[in-house]
Amino acid sequence: MASGMNECIFCKIIRGDIPAAFALQNPEFVAFPDINPKAPVHLLVMPRAHIRSLNDVAAQDDGFGQRLLAFVASVAAAAGVDKDGYRVIVNNGPDGGQEVDHLHIHVLAGRMLGDLI
Amino acid sequence: MASGMNECIFCKIIRGDIPAAFALQNPEFVAFPDINPKAPVHLLVMPRAHIRSLNDVAAQDDGFGQRLLAFVASVAAAAGVDKDGYRVIVNNGPDGGQEVDHLHIHVLAGRMLGDLI
Repeated sequence: MASGMNECIFCKIIRGDIPAAFALQNPEFVAFPDINPKAPVHLLVMPRAHIRSLNDVAAQDDGFGQRLLAFVASVAAAAGVDKDGYRVIVNNGPDGGQEVDHLHIHVLAGRMLGDLI
Repeated sequence: MASGMNECIFCKIIRGDIPAAFALQNPEFVAFPDINPKAPVHLLVMPRAHIRSLNDVAAQDDGFGQRLLAFVASVAAAAGVDKDGYRVIVNNGPDGGQEVDHLHIHVLAGRMLGDLI
């Protein structure tokens, strides 16, 4: 599937062309619920910029990854699951099961999560 | 389980007290195979420093997360799976299924990975 800025469903959500209830947002990142939740809490965290996968993070500025991971942790805290725990999953490329070609981080919580895969 | 620096099994591996074949390492991070692999490629990536979870990343220096994520991507590239794809999982706290209280990032690849959890 082609997924430039115009076609990317996550870019459309971030722009507001497709409605979503942002659980947390700042000028650089957003978090909103997965439409097919796999746990009581299942949020997608992503940069507003159309970065494709973790393979492209090294090309970002020196503070990007720190801001991204701090935002992920703040999403978990805002959801009230930072203490009980949460699982973070990033699928990259076809074998990883990446379904949308815009870097996104699954944050799952709200119950004891099972085995890895 | 108590897991200070002295007891932490990952700290013991990082120090060399328990042998492991490092797939990749630098002064700040290491990667070595999971002893119970869930995929043809299953590496654990972690900081040498005993950081407990993603909740503690915000307390690190401004470049920490970027260096960590770039190292994860370089581990995938070194394993030859960056193009075909890989899954990154970070378990945090009890509900997340974190088994060792030292931040570690699972990198899984080598086959089409299944559903999220």
